[in-house]
Amino acid sequence: MELRYSDRASYVKASEIRELLKLTQRPEVISFAGGLPAPELFPLEQINKVMNKVILEDGHAALQYATTEGYNPLRKIIAEQRMQPNRIDCTYENIMITNGSQQGLEFSGKLFLNEGDIVMCESPSYLGAINAFKIYNPKFVEIPMDENGMIIEELEKALEKYPETKMIYTIPDFQNPSGKTMSLERRKKLAEIANEKKIPVIEDSPYGELRFEGEKLPCIKHFDAEGYVITLGSFSKTFCPGLRIGWVCAHKDIVNKYVLIKQGADLQASSVSQIAAARFMEEYDLNDHIQKIISVYKKRRDLMLDSMKKYFPAEVKYTYPEGGLFTWVELREDLDSREINMEALEVNVAFVPGGSFFPNGGNNNTFRLNYSTMPEDKIVEGIKRLGEVLKRHY
Amino acid sequence: MELRYSDRASYVKASEIRELLKLTQRPEVISFAGGLPAPELFPLEQINKVMNKVILEDGHAALQYATTEGYNPLRKIIAEQRMQPNRIDCTYENIMITNGSQQGLEFSGKLFLNEGDIVMCESPSYLGAINAFKIYNPKFVEIPMDENGMIIEELEKALEKYPETKMIYTIPDFQNPSGKTMSLERRKKLAEIANEKKIPVIEDSPYGELRFEGEKLPCIKHFDAEGYVITLGSFSKTFCPGLRIGWVCAHKDIVNKYVLIKQGADLQASSVSQIAAARFMEEYDLNDHIQKIISVYKKRRDLMLDSMKKYFPAEVKYTYPEGGLFTWVELREDLDSREINMEALEVNVAFVPGGSFFPNGGNNNTFRLNYSTMPEDKIVEGIKRLGEVLKRHY
Repeated sequence: MELRYSDRASYVKASEIRELLKLTQRPEVISFAGGLPAPELFPLEQINKVMNKVILEDGHAALQYATTEGYNPLRKIIAEQRMQPNRIDCTYENIMITNGSQQGLEFSGKLFLNEGDIVMCESPSYLGAINAFKIYNPKFVEIPMDENGMIIEELEKALEKYPETKMIYTIPDFQNPSGKTMSLERRKKLAEIANEKKIPVIEDSPYGELRFEGEKLPCIKHFDAEGYVITLGSFSKTFCPGLRIGWVCAHKDIVNKYVLIKQGADLQASSVSQIAAARFMEEYDLNDHIQKIISVYKKRRDLMLDSMKKYFPAEVKYTYPEGGLFTWVELREDLDSREINMEALEVNVAFVPGGSFFPNGGNNNTFRLNYSTMPEDKIVEGIKRLGEVLKRHY
Repeated sequence: MELRYSDRASYVKASEIRELLKLTQRPEVISFAGGLPAPELFPLEQINKVMNKVILEDGHAALQYATTEGYNPLRKIIAEQRMQPNRIDCTYENIMITNGSQQGLEFSGKLFLNEGDIVMCESPSYLGAINAFKIYNPKFVEIPMDENGMIIEELEKALEKYPETKMIYTIPDFQNPSGKTMSLERRKKLAEIANEKKIPVIEDSPYGELRFEGEKLPCIKHFDAEGYVITLGSFSKTFCPGLRIGWVCAHKDIVNKYVLIKQGADLQASSVSQIAAARFMEEYDLNDHIQKIISVYKKRRDLMLDSMKKYFPAEVKYTYPEGGLFTWVELREDLDSREINMEALEVNVAFVPGGSFFPNGGNNNTFRLNYSTMPEDKIVEGIKRLGEVLKRHY
C-alpha cells in the first residue's frame, strides 16, 4: 500500500508519554510517568446518583445531539463557579465546552498558526501542547524560566527579535512539567504585552485550583484589558478526566471562532458527560472535592520531596511545586535521562525523560516526576529505587 | 481587538444546518431540518442499568484517562458485531474510536489534504464532511449521481482529468442528503479504482444498518484488496448520539496515523461513554434495538412519502430512500428553496435548503427532508403545510 498523506501528517510524532504509559501498565511498575489524577478520589457514589437522574429524568436530551457551544447550564456553572472566582469577568457566552483541554490546545493551533508562524512558550513546556501545535508546523521560540515562571524580560527580548510572533503559550500555575508558578507581577506584565502587541496568549490552566499552600494568584486573563488572553480550563484534574470536559474562556468574538472550528471537528462534546457534570456541580460543591484532592496530593508531594532528599544524590536539583502534580529534576549535564529511565524500568520504576518537553530539543539531563497517582508506600519505595539508580552515576 | 488568525480559519463558515437548528428549537416548529434520531427510542432503562454498573464496578477506569486508540473491548465489539457482519475482514486493531464520526471526517481531511488538493465527492454530499474538509482548503470535484448512487463512469472521467486526486469521499447507503444508495456493482468498481489508482476512499457509513427493505449490500471496504478504503462508522444513528462514539475502520498502518492525529487533537474519546457502550453491547443485542428503530423510521418514511404524494404539487420530484433518515426534493429550477424555507417557517415548518450540500454552489432549487425525528401526526401536518406553501409557486 502506498498512500500520499498530507504534509502536516509528517509533522506529528507519537507522544513519548503515551507510548511510555503503555510500557508502564504492568502492575508491578511504580510509575511516576503519567499525569493521572488519583482514581481512588473519584466521587463514584455521587457521580452514580447524578448519572441515574440524568439518564432517567433527562435522558432524551442527554443522549441526543446538542449545540456545539456546549450545554448552557454547564457553561454558566463554569463561568460562575470556576472562572469568576479566579477573577475572570465573564458569562456563559465566554465559555465553549471542549473535549478535554487538549482539544482547546489543538483548536488554538488551528485558529492562529500558519506554517512557519512563531509560537513562544516556556522552556520546558507541556508535551501535549507542543504536539498539538506541531501539526501546523510553526517555529517554536522557547523562553527561559526561573523560580517565578517565564522570564518576562526574555520574552520581551524575543518579541523584539520576532515581532511577527503569532501566539504565546503559557501554563502559569504549577507548570507541566516544571512545577513552577508565574508570579503575580509577571502575569500582569504578560497581559499588558499581549494587549500592547496584539498577540494572543493561550493561558493553559488545568492545575491552578490545586494549590497546596501560599496565596492563590489570579489568572493572567484577570489583567486582560481587551481580550487577547484565552484561558483553557479543565475538569480532568479537579473532577475526573474520563468525562472529557474542558473549556475555552475568551472574548465572545473569539469563542465564536472556536465554535466554528469545533463544528467541523466533532460537532459537540458528549451530551451525557456535560449534563452529568452540570448536575454534579449543582448538587455538590466541587470545592469540597478539590479540598480532598489537595490534602492527598500535598501529602504525596511532601513524601516524594522528603524521599528525594533522603535517597537522591545531594547534587541532583529539583523544583518545589506549591501545587499541581509534578516536580522536575535536573541531573548533571552529561547524563541522559532516557538511559536512566531504562535502568529505572529494570527495577520497575518509570518517569518521563525531559527532552520531549523542549520543542527544539536538547536538555536530555532532565526528567519529570508525577506524585499524584501512586499511593504513599509506592512513592517512598519508587524514589528509593530511583535514588539507587541515580547513585550509580554520581 | 485585532487578531491575526490563521488562513485556514477564514475557510470555515457556520454550518447552515446547525444555525437553522437553533431557529427551529421553538416547540411549535415542525422540523424536518435536523438529522436527529428519534429520542423516544433511546433505551433509557437499559442504559441506566449499564451506567450504574460501569460507575460502581468500573468507575476507576471509566472516569480515568485511557488509551488514544479506544477501549479495547469496545474496539473488539465493533469489529465483531458491526464490521464483520458487514463483510469487512477486520479485528480490533483495525478500529480506532472517534468522538462521533464527524471527527473521523475531520481527521481524514487532516491526514490527506494539502491546500489545493482535489477531493471527489457525490453531488450533493454531506454538509458536515464538506465543512470538515474545507478548513484544509481543497478543491472539490462533484461527481453526479443517479438512482444507483455515484456514477462511476463520471468518476473515471474526472479521475482522468485530475489524476492527482487525493481522496474520494462517499456515503454509499441512504446518502445524506439524497437518500440514494450505491449499487453493488458500483461499490466493487469503486474499490477497484481506489486500489488501482492508490487513492483513499473515505466510506462514510452512519446509516447502512438502517435498511427498511431490499437486500443489504456489503460495504465498499468488503471489496478492498490492499487497504485503500477507510470506513467510518457511528453509533449516533443506531444507538444514541449523545455518547459521541464513532470509529475509523482501516488498515492497521492507516489506523496508526489516525491515532497520532487523535493524540494531538483530544487524547481520547470519553472513557465513560466507551465503557458504557461496550457493556450495553455485551448485555443486550444492538440488532434488536436497530430493528425497533427501523420499524418506526419505515413507518415515518412511508407516511412522509404518502403525504408528499397527497399534498405536494405533482411536478415536484423526490427520492425514494430504502433506509436512513432523509428524502431529497427537487423543485422547478427557477425556485429558491431558501425563500421557500422562509415561507415555511412562517407556518412553523422547517427543512434544510439544498444549496449547502453542493461544495461548489448552485442547485438552490433543492432541499432535504428528515423523517426520523417528528412523530407521525406532525409529519402529516408538516407536509400538508409545506405542500400549501409549494402550491403557491406551481
